[in-house]
Amino acid sequence: MTIPFTALVNSLPATTPFVGPETIERQRGAIFSARIGANESAFGISPNALKAMQDSLINSSWYADPESHELRQALAEKHNVSMDEICIDSGIDTLLGLTVRMLLEPGQKAVTSLGAYPTFNYHVAGFGAQLVTVPYNGFHEDPEALIAATKSHKAPLVYLSNPDNPMGTWHGAATIDQMINEVPEHSVLLLDEAYIEFADRPIAPAIDTSNPRVIRYRTFSKAYGMAGQRIAYAIAHKDLISGFNKIRNHFGLNRVAQIGALASVNDNAFIPAVRAAVSKSRAQVMQFASELGLYAEPSFTNFVAVNLESADRAKAMIEHLADNRVFMRMPGVAPLNSCVRVGLGSESEFDLFRDVFKSGL
Amino acid sequence: MTIPFTALVNSLPATTPFVGPETIERQRGAIFSARIGANESAFGISPNALKAMQDSLINSSWYADPESHELRQALAEKHNVSMDEICIDSGIDTLLGLTVRMLLEPGQKAVTSLGAYPTFNYHVAGFGAQLVTVPYNGFHEDPEALIAATKSHKAPLVYLSNPDNPMGTWHGAATIDQMINEVPEHSVLLLDEAYIEFADRPIAPAIDTSNPRVIRYRTFSKAYGMAGQRIAYAIAHKDLISGFNKIRNHFGLNRVAQIGALASVNDNAFIPAVRAAVSKSRAQVMQFASELGLYAEPSFTNFVAVNLESADRAKAMIEHLADNRVFMRMPGVAPLNSCVRVGLGSESEFDLFRDVFKSGL
Repeated sequence: MTIPFTALVNSLPATTPFVGPETIERQRGAIFSARIGANESAFGISPNALKAMQDSLINSSWYADPESHELRQALAEKHNVSMDEICIDSGIDTLLGLTVRMLLEPGQKAVTSLGAYPTFNYHVAGFGAQLVTVPYNGFHEDPEALIAATKSHKAPLVYLSNPDNPMGTWHGAATIDQMINEVPEHSVLLLDEAYIEFADRPIAPAIDTSNPRVIRYRTFSKAYGMAGQRIAYAIAHKDLISGFNKIRNHFGLNRVAQIGALASVNDNAFIPAVRAAVSKSRAQVMQFASELGLYAEPSFTNFVAVNLESADRAKAMIEHLADNRVFMRMPGVAPLNSCVRVGLGSESEFDLFRDVFKSGL
Repeated sequence: MTIPFTALVNSLPATTPFVGPETIERQRGAIFSARIGANESAFGISPNALKAMQDSLINSSWYADPESHELRQALAEKHNVSMDEICIDSGIDTLLGLTVRMLLEPGQKAVTSLGAYPTFNYHVAGFGAQLVTVPYNGFHEDPEALIAATKSHKAPLVYLSNPDNPMGTWHGAATIDQMINEVPEHSVLLLDEAYIEFADRPIAPAIDTSNPRVIRYRTFSKAYGMAGQRIAYAIAHKDLISGFNKIRNHFGLNRVAQIGALASVNDNAFIPAVRAAVSKSRAQVMQFASELGLYAEPSFTNFVAVNLESADRAKAMIEHLADNRVFMRMPGVAPLNSCVRVGLGSESEFDLFRDVFKSGL
C-alpha cells in the first residue's frame, strides 16, 4: 500500500489529545451519571442564546456569514478593539491550529509548560514543529521560565493559559502584563483565556492590540456553556488577524453557533450569574476536600485540582469514579498527576461524586 | 512590525474563496429577498433532524463525541463500509484542507479543472502546493485530461466533483469508475460528491474502500439542507482515514450538527422527497430559460447553469439581480463565465428571480 502521505504525516503517531467520555462509556458498556471531566459548564447557556438558536435551526440550510460581521462588531465593542482585530472560528482548538500553522516553520520551537493543554502540543507536532517544555512552579505555570526558554530557544511561540488548565491556578494582571512586555521580538505569546470569565476577580490585563507580540484567545465553550457549539475568537494586532484570514476556512463556522454567540454577548446578566454559581460550587468542593483532609488548590476555573499525593492513588481514583459512573480526568504529567481534576457539576452530579469519591479513598 | 509569519503565509494573498451574501448585503445596504447563489437547499431539513437538534440545544455545553461513533456506525451501514473507513468533520471544505495537508508536500502539484471549486484551490495554495488546471470539455469536467495531467505532473492529488459545481453537469458511474482505475500509483483522486443525492438517477460508482487511490466526499450541506450546521464525511481506505485522524481537530465538531446528521441518515423518506422537489424545480428553470431562448445546461444538482453567451452579459445580469435583491453567483473563469448559476429557490424566490431576470435581459 503506497499512500502518498507527506513525510510529516507518515511520522506522526495515531494519537488524540483527549479520550472523550463517550469512548469510555462504550468501552465500559455503561453511561456516566456524572460528567465532570471535560470542563464543560454545568450552569447552562444564556436563555437569550437558547432562544436565538432554537429560532435559527429552521434556517440550517444557510451558511454562516463568513465574516461573522455582527458577532465581531459586538465583540469589538465589548473589548474596545477594532473589528479587524478579531478572528472568529470554531473553538480555541481550531484557532491554535491556525496559529501554529501561520507562525511556526517545521522544525521551529514552541514553548509551553510541562503538563499544560495537550491540544496545543498536538498542533505543534501536527505541523512538524518542536515542543520545548518548562516545569510548573508548584501548581502554577511559570511565566519567567517560559519567557527564558522562549529567548534561549528563539521560539516563535510561547503558550500560557490563564487561568490554567489543568490546575485551575492563575496569575494576576500585573504578572501577565510583565510577561507580555518580555516577549522577545521574534516571538508571539499565545494567551489562552478560555476560563477567564470564571475568575472571582479581574485578572486579565488590559487588551492592547497595538502590540503584535500577543494573541488573546476567548471562547463561548466554558462560562457561556457552549462547548458543543464550537465557537471562540482571537483578539490581536490586525496584522496577526490578517494572517488568520489568509488560511482559515471562511465558511467553517456553524451558523446556529454564530447566532447563539451573538445573543450570549448581548446578555449582560448571564456571566455574572454563572460566576456566582461557579464560585459557590467551587467552595463546596474546597470544603469537601478539606473535610477529607485533602489539599485542594484554589481555582479560578470551573474545576478544582485535589491532591491525592501520588499518581497511583489519583489514577486509581479516576478508575474507581468511572467504575461508579462518574467521568473525571486528571493531569497527564508528573508532578501534576498526583491530583485529580474535580469538575463543577450539577447538584446531583456533585452528590454522586462525593459519595463515590469518599468510598474510593 | 516583525510578525514571525512563515514564509508561506507571508507569500499568500488576502483572498477568500467566495464572498458571502451577507457581505454583499452590507455593501449594498439592502437585504436579499431571494438567496439562490450559494447552492443552499431551499427544500428544508429532515423533520427528524430538526426535532433532534431542537432537543439537543439544551445540552450545548457538552462537546460532541470526538469519534462520532453513532454517526459513523449509521453511515458505515448505509454505505456498506467499515466504521474505520469514514472520517466525519465540519464540512467538505475542512476535509479537503486536511486532505491537502496530509497528501501534498509544499511544491507538489494538485490537478483540477480550470474553473472548478475554488475552496480546493484555496487549500492547495494555503499549504504551499501548486495547482495544475485542465480545461473543461464544453461544460463538463474532463476525466481523461485530468488523469493525463496527473500522470505527466506526477501530482499526488487530482480533484473532481461529480456532479460538478459550478456547472451542474455529471459523468455516469462507468466513466468515473474508469477514471478511478486510471489513477496512477503515486496519486489519490478526491471525488467530491457533495451534490450526488440530487442526481435524477444513480451515477455514483460502487464504493470500494479496498482501493487507496480514491477518497469520496459526502455532505449534509446540500440535499440534507444543513450547510449552516457544517458536517460532512470522507469515505476511503482505512489507511487514508487513519491519516485524517492524525491531524484533525478531534473536538472540532458541533454536537447539535452531529445529532442532526444522525437523525437525517435515519430518515429514509427525506432524500427521495427532496430529489423529487429538486427535479421539478430544475425543470421549471429549464423551461423558463427555453421560453427566453436561452441555453440551460442539464443539471443533476440544485442549480442550473444558464448561458448568456458572454461574460459581460453574465456579469451585468448578476449585478442587475443584486440591484433587485436577488443573490446569485456565476462561474468565475472563462469560458464557463458566459453562464449564470441559477440556484433552485423557494417558489417566491423563483417568482422574484424570473421577473428580475427577464427585466435584465
